[in-house]
Amino acid sequence: MNGKSTHRRELKMKRNDENVTPMLTDLYQITSTYAYWKTDKHQDPVTFDMFYRKNPFGGAFSIFAGLSRFLDFVENFRFTEADIAYLKSVLPQTVELDFFEWLMALDCSTIKVTAVPEGTVVFPRVPLVTIEGPRGIAQLLETTLLNLVNSSTLTATKAARMRDIAGFDAQILEFGARRAAGPDGAMTASEAAYLGGFDATSNVLAGQLLGMPVRGTHPHSYVNSFESLADLYPSPSIDRAFVENVLKYRTELGNYFLLDPTHEGELSAFIAYATAFPDGFLGLVDTYSTMRSGVPNFLFVALALMDLGHQPLGIRLDSGDLGQLSREARRLFRDVGCACKRDLSFLKICASNDIDEDTLIALCASGHEIDIFGIGTKLVSSGETLGGVYKLVENKDTPCSKYSEDPIKIPIAGRKEVVRFYNRFGRPECDYLYFADEDFSDLWQFDGESRSIIGYVPFSKESVILSLRNASWCAPLRKVYWKGGQTSHVPSLEASRAYVLAQLKELPTSYQFGEIEMVEPQRVFLSTKLYALNQELLAINKRKK
Amino acid sequence: MNGKSTHRRELKMKRNDENVTPMLTDLYQITSTYAYWKTDKHQDPVTFDMFYRKNPFGGAFSIFAGLSRFLDFVENFRFTEADIAYLKSVLPQTVELDFFEWLMALDCSTIKVTAVPEGTVVFPRVPLVTIEGPRGIAQLLETTLLNLVNSSTLTATKAARMRDIAGFDAQILEFGARRAAGPDGAMTASEAAYLGGFDATSNVLAGQLLGMPVRGTHPHSYVNSFESLADLYPSPSIDRAFVENVLKYRTELGNYFLLDPTHEGELSAFIAYATAFPDGFLGLVDTYSTMRSGVPNFLFVALALMDLGHQPLGIRLDSGDLGQLSREARRLFRDVGCACKRDLSFLKICASNDIDEDTLIALCASGHEIDIFGIGTKLVSSGETLGGVYKLVENKDTPCSKYSEDPIKIPIAGRKEVVRFYNRFGRPECDYLYFADEDFSDLWQFDGESRSIIGYVPFSKESVILSLRNASWCAPLRKVYWKGGQTSHVPSLEASRAYVLAQLKELPTSYQFGEIEMVEPQRVFLSTKLYALNQELLAINKRKK
Repeated sequence: MNGKSTHRRELKMKRNDENVTPMLTDLYQITSTYAYWKTDKHQDPVTFDMFYRKNPFGGAFSIFAGLSRFLDFVENFRFTEADIAYLKSVLPQTVELDFFEWLMALDCSTIKVTAVPEGTVVFPRVPLVTIEGPRGIAQLLETTLLNLVNSSTLTATKAARMRDIAGFDAQILEFGARRAAGPDGAMTASEAAYLGGFDATSNVLAGQLLGMPVRGTHPHSYVNSFESLADLYPSPSIDRAFVENVLKYRTELGNYFLLDPTHEGELSAFIAYATAFPDGFLGLVDTYSTMRSGVPNFLFVALALMDLGHQPLGIRLDSGDLGQLSREARRLFRDVGCACKRDLSFLKICASNDIDEDTLIALCASGHEIDIFGIGTKLVSSGETLGGVYKLVENKDTPCSKYSEDPIKIPIAGRKEVVRFYNRFGRPECDYLYFADEDFSDLWQFDGESRSIIGYVPFSKESVILSLRNASWCAPLRKVYWKGGQTSHVPSLEASRAYVLAQLKELPTSYQFGEIEMVEPQRVFLSTKLYALNQELLAINKRKK
Repeated sequence: MNGKSTHRRELKMKRNDENVTPMLTDLYQITSTYAYWKTDKHQDPVTFDMFYRKNPFGGAFSIFAGLSRFLDFVENFRFTEADIAYLKSVLPQTVELDFFEWLMALDCSTIKVTAVPEGTVVFPRVPLVTIEGPRGIAQLLETTLLNLVNSSTLTATKAARMRDIAGFDAQILEFGARRAAGPDGAMTASEAAYLGGFDATSNVLAGQLLGMPVRGTHPHSYVNSFESLADLYPSPSIDRAFVENVLKYRTELGNYFLLDPTHEGELSAFIAYATAFPDGFLGLVDTYSTMRSGVPNFLFVALALMDLGHQPLGIRLDSGDLGQLSREARRLFRDVGCACKRDLSFLKICASNDIDEDTLIALCASGHEIDIFGIGTKLVSSGETLGGVYKLVENKDTPCSKYSEDPIKIPIAGRKEVVRFYNRFGRPECDYLYFADEDFSDLWQFDGESRSIIGYVPFSKESVILSLRNASWCAPLRKVYWKGGQTSHVPSLEASRAYVLAQLKELPTSYQFGEIEMVEPQRVFLSTKLYALNQELLAINKRKK
């Protein structure tokens, strides 16, 4: 609603995720699982990695999201009788009935889920989620995992980039519900935007179910519903003395600042709205003319509210040159404040209207007086996708990969551990991947006081020596979130969001804009053994091709 | 699954629409409704129009979608006690408790919903949905209506454009689940794609809940799970004689057509898959080398299947130059068919891999042999949004509008009827808007055998004479779908899809590609009275501004 009624209770997630079932999958997952089952391959131990190959928005990082939702899915994974009946109806008659019995009894108790914590700044190629377990169940998780992680990670990344540009003092509100991809597209966007560093949403259901703060005042149609002051008077709620005081300000200040009278319907709308919400009044000022009617009308009402001891909140700009209008509005606040001997510097300026990264950059470059950004369309429909994939990296205890002419498309074979290197400020510098059966401490060389480790660039001849100096450090990046049928470590949305903001504050601009550095620095290195094995597999697969 | 098991029962919609509640709204709808309630304006009769201003994808039409889902919402509109408790917690303490009582009792029985039928080819400015009723409830429908219609209309339009380019003989499958905006983003996309003219989806849940056909075979990871023929033999399901026959074809044909042996792991995967699904076998052929391994391996297995009386389906290409590979594969089918004295012309070629409109156009231009297109990412994430809006057009029985410098942004004031003009082939030519209180038959002039009507271009000085000749005709475009608490006329998804296809077949290419005609022909005309009133309002609003 407004700054005063900020609602920040403990975040309890109660998503309406009825669509997140084992049936939210591509049919080929079911048919190929049957083919595994039919030829006794469904119980083979395998390892799948979920990773992506390219950061969206030309950037140098992404914000990993969707994990807690995926863990809910894993925890509740069960086909129902209705699901099985449907599958029987679409699969050929030749499919054996025992397969359906097996499906019916299937759950995720036999798999292990290792993942990067939700909200982590992540880089291409690094396994974000690793699933270990029997082939049948591991295969069946692919589509749902990708659906949940790809969309949330994309939106969280966009939100984080916008937060980074707008700065940490600005308030950013998510207004995307009307342009999002359906109802749950809106919910997914609200959650991911909050995780990525936005402050609140206009989406009431997201506030209710996910516990995030909600904000909103009135639309243009509210202003359009009033033609003149006559529209006010039928209502006994309208305080005539208050209206007289508003009109007094209008006469006095209007004579001083304005050539023409302000729009009377708009003034009436503001009076009515302020009658309903005397505290935290925020006026949408661009229905007629922002500077010749909207902002002055807001000020007349705001001053009359202040005379009654209320504290108005400010204005919202929704069209025109937002930077220019914000400066003009701020100047009018100052001038009117001087004329009335009031300090109006507390008034907030909110801006919305198709705001994207470019708009934010242009606003920051040209100077603006905006305190609050409302962002919708460009957040929920960025025109990009995160091409996260799910690849077999170990087949029956043997590392495996898939050859491609394009090295970036080759998954890094093997069951791996991931260690992240941080500089002394806590900024992530790179990730180091090694075989799960290697002892990480054995990989180091000690040279007097510093220690170092050799890291190879995947599918390249380059290597580097990573040394820990000057209070830089390294630590395992991932955790086991699901094992033996139990989840652990799952943080709240609020905690994950705090983690995002803490990381963003340490990121240099070059992480946001990958394009500034002509060559993106290498962020992923392999241990000697992991590198050698991948080179060997590459050679074998290339020969076979 | 495959052509044979096509599943086409009666389409019964059982969407998981738990998120479609009155709470799926922007907070400002609730706050401004309170402001209306507080000042006794919530019962005023109003009319809102939902329309959009610009066709997406540079085209000349859109496909209207999302209506049946919106009508479900209208039918079930009710705040729960939990909703009210939440709203009390986020709204200021000053909000009167009687307002929450009023909200609690609110339903849609007092409103009327008039709309264009789902699946109609529509044009900018035309009111797609009109809501008449008391201001309070009409205001509360905005966000949910826009959420449901904007996303579905965008995707249905994209699907229809792709159908139009690919032609009516091609099969088009929707593969978007993994890149869609969350779980319900996937469901929304599957439904809208089917409505827009796609044939089936890979999304099992969409098949189960919405009744549309589902398709799918196996992913790359299935092929990667096999290293060699040794992987087959542990299984008692594998028919050794069948494998021998496959290997015989491999030796005989391979010697004839190929320099190197095909990939044995891939061949094993195809044998295993064909063992599970002997009918309708479709092989994904690009894991190693499409023409040197994948397609030949498919043919060896397909021929052995045919020897057992089974009918294989074909191949799927998922990388490379799809047009070129499809032609090469078709030639290999022919050559191998000749060599084996078999007709292999029934084999289908399916292609996928980031297919967009441009890809389809390029494929059609350069020639291809693709029978089936699998389309995902570019359908579910087109990078555009439909900017559908919801505007007050009548306030307390008085037409109203909102002035803007940009005429396309000005809503057409007044409660209107819409008549569509068709040419003799049934192609929609334009829409004619007149005041709801005008008698349409009075607007015509009869001149001997033809009759004509004058139509004004909105906010322009131009007018045209529309004459009905040569079996062209006109008819009301919209229906009342909800009145007195009852829905009527709601067609099934299958019927709406048939309607889309029937219309698409009549559309000239210029409708698809708006850019071919330098000036988009005017599609919306106003009656004399409606035009005059809008001009008058324009003048008044401009003066007030």
